[in-house]
Amino acid sequence: MSGSGMVHNNNTEHKSLLEAFDGTKYRVGGHGKRNVEKLKAALAEVDGELESDMYGKGAVIEDFQARMAELLGKEAAVFFPSGTMAQQIALRIWCDQKALKRVAYHPLCHLEIHEEDGLKELHHIEPVLLADKQRLIRLDDVKGLQEDIACLLLELPQREIGGQLPDFHELEAISAYCREKGIKLHMDGARLFEVLPYYGKTAAEVCQLFDSVYISFYKGIGGIAGAILAGSSDFTQKSKVWKRRHGGDLISLYPYILSSDYYFRQRVDKMGLYYEQAKELAALYNGCRGVTTLPEVPVSNMFHVHIGLPKEQLEAVLVEVYEETGVGLTHYVREYGEGGSYFEVSIGDRYASVPAEKLKLAFASLNTKLR
Amino acid sequence: MSGSGMVHNNNTEHKSLLEAFDGTKYRVGGHGKRNVEKLKAALAEVDGELESDMYGKGAVIEDFQARMAELLGKEAAVFFPSGTMAQQIALRIWCDQKALKRVAYHPLCHLEIHEEDGLKELHHIEPVLLADKQRLIRLDDVKGLQEDIACLLLELPQREIGGQLPDFHELEAISAYCREKGIKLHMDGARLFEVLPYYGKTAAEVCQLFDSVYISFYKGIGGIAGAILAGSSDFTQKSKVWKRRHGGDLISLYPYILSSDYYFRQRVDKMGLYYEQAKELAALYNGCRGVTTLPEVPVSNMFHVHIGLPKEQLEAVLVEVYEETGVGLTHYVREYGEGGSYFEVSIGDRYASVPAEKLKLAFASLNTKLR
Repeated sequence: MSGSGMVHNNNTEHKSLLEAFDGTKYRVGGHGKRNVEKLKAALAEVDGELESDMYGKGAVIEDFQARMAELLGKEAAVFFPSGTMAQQIALRIWCDQKALKRVAYHPLCHLEIHEEDGLKELHHIEPVLLADKQRLIRLDDVKGLQEDIACLLLELPQREIGGQLPDFHELEAISAYCREKGIKLHMDGARLFEVLPYYGKTAAEVCQLFDSVYISFYKGIGGIAGAILAGSSDFTQKSKVWKRRHGGDLISLYPYILSSDYYFRQRVDKMGLYYEQAKELAALYNGCRGVTTLPEVPVSNMFHVHIGLPKEQLEAVLVEVYEETGVGLTHYVREYGEGGSYFEVSIGDRYASVPAEKLKLAFASLNTKLR
Repeated sequence: MSGSGMVHNNNTEHKSLLEAFDGTKYRVGGHGKRNVEKLKAALAEVDGELESDMYGKGAVIEDFQARMAELLGKEAAVFFPSGTMAQQIALRIWCDQKALKRVAYHPLCHLEIHEEDGLKELHHIEPVLLADKQRLIRLDDVKGLQEDIACLLLELPQREIGGQLPDFHELEAISAYCREKGIKLHMDGARLFEVLPYYGKTAAEVCQLFDSVYISFYKGIGGIAGAILAGSSDFTQKSKVWKRRHGGDLISLYPYILSSDYYFRQRVDKMGLYYEQAKELAALYNGCRGVTTLPEVPVSNMFHVHIGLPKEQLEAVLVEVYEETGVGLTHYVREYGEGGSYFEVSIGDRYASVPAEKLKLAFASLNTKLR
């Protein structure tokens, strides 16, 4: 069996960017290939006699949920197969509680652009889009809401705009305002652990500003799949009922739980390192002609790279850089605006294995070709 | 870590049925413990370099779906994390197609009793309950429907009444009637492979009577979790959109796919054996005083055992049998009606490892204690 995933498509005339990337010796982003070895490694340390969870019960799920609840400073936590499921359910619970089927979130919120409108089609919840696609939600946006909402969702960091982040004081002010107005505050914390070094806070210190929190195990953590939804015991109890309704209360979720646990333990303490490496790498990009990163100085392990070249031209440049230097910078490029391109960078374990001089060489090559 | 699952509860004064069952040398039902070893065994034969599926794409998921579609004689198939998700979605698609949010199914249908009303709460679909709790849906029930429905769901076999099955001619007649009336026919085939030896048909021969089919990989197949939904290409395309809305379009479903594939290959050809063993075991139960099985002669690997003793009394009897003979017949008992009890038996790999004389001993002991 083989298969290069969704990105590999109809570029057949010359070597595609993905092919060139796959041919490099050093790859700059991520934790490495998502292959079966990742699961085997996670299971290698687990006793085969360990019993499966059974429809949400059993030590393997309950222990992990308890540890995550404690870490996030919440009463309880529930393991979900996906964040899509967890977050729709969180918003539904808050809407039901207030008998008001309206929430607010960013125009590039995951629920708005990646979930086939599940929130609307399954839960009939109407979103109000706050801020605009270029910037973060600010306190003034929340204060300026013309309609009542049951819940405000904030994504930390805001992935689709390069992983930007409000400063902590603004976050506190938004939280205080929401509490005053009876608006529930939900965190899309798919990359929560990735921003803690920048905030200089513990997970619990950030989470206490929110009524409910979702975290993911396959972003910076690099697990197989899975999510945690945390909040009060009353909230999480309700979320279990909805989890069953959604078809997420599987007889066995342990393949995801055990791998989430394994990669969480491996990587949660490396988020500071990834953050420092992201800043270093972003500086290298910003040193190239016509290249900017968003944010200019990353606040997590991620950022976006914007380059003023059409997609095909940039791909051709990158293929040359990869073949010349053996360093792979990105496996894909997307069109952006008029004649521009961008791609996302997330720092993971691979970055440390790229020799500094190789990286310098790659950026020298890129800079030359962009002139 | 330990944990004996959901069945182990507040029976602390004397040895519980589950404890006694766990202490037996020979256990009659199922494939054995649902522990992590089951996943490790499935992965042992898989090359670690095999790439993950990515949000429904990639060889690992597409190949399996194609093989299942072919086996079921349908144009296409989609892998789902759960049958709960797959079946709600199937009914939703048929309802949308007919612009009619009404379906019909058995009063003990999985969607009616095990899914926290997901069909109603998420999809606002109204079910008409056909037949009654004691018997199968018949052609006359379908003909007698007072209201239009978009879809009829038939469960083969009807698990909650012991795994009963309409004869094949009645199934053909129901299918023909539905086609004539423009009613879509959906199969809850969680245990489809288990009934093929009785029908003497291939999966495709049974499935061609239905417009959509769901099959499960952790019943008789004994996998970790997961389901397939099959039908026309148009139907399965729509189901992928709903799968994403439900939060079931995980970045990686391969832990379930690979294990489903492994255990399917191991056990699909053993369904005839399980069926013969189920008939043998049911005869042993029916030979005991005050014991009947439902059905009297099984039509699959499963049946229910009804015993005219209150739960606590029956549990005490069973504990004695287990301790005396080392044979475990069931790990749980449920109350049934006035002063009666029942439990479910599903034959799997364990049955073959119970020596015939030990089994005979256990039933002699049971029969003596029931006098």
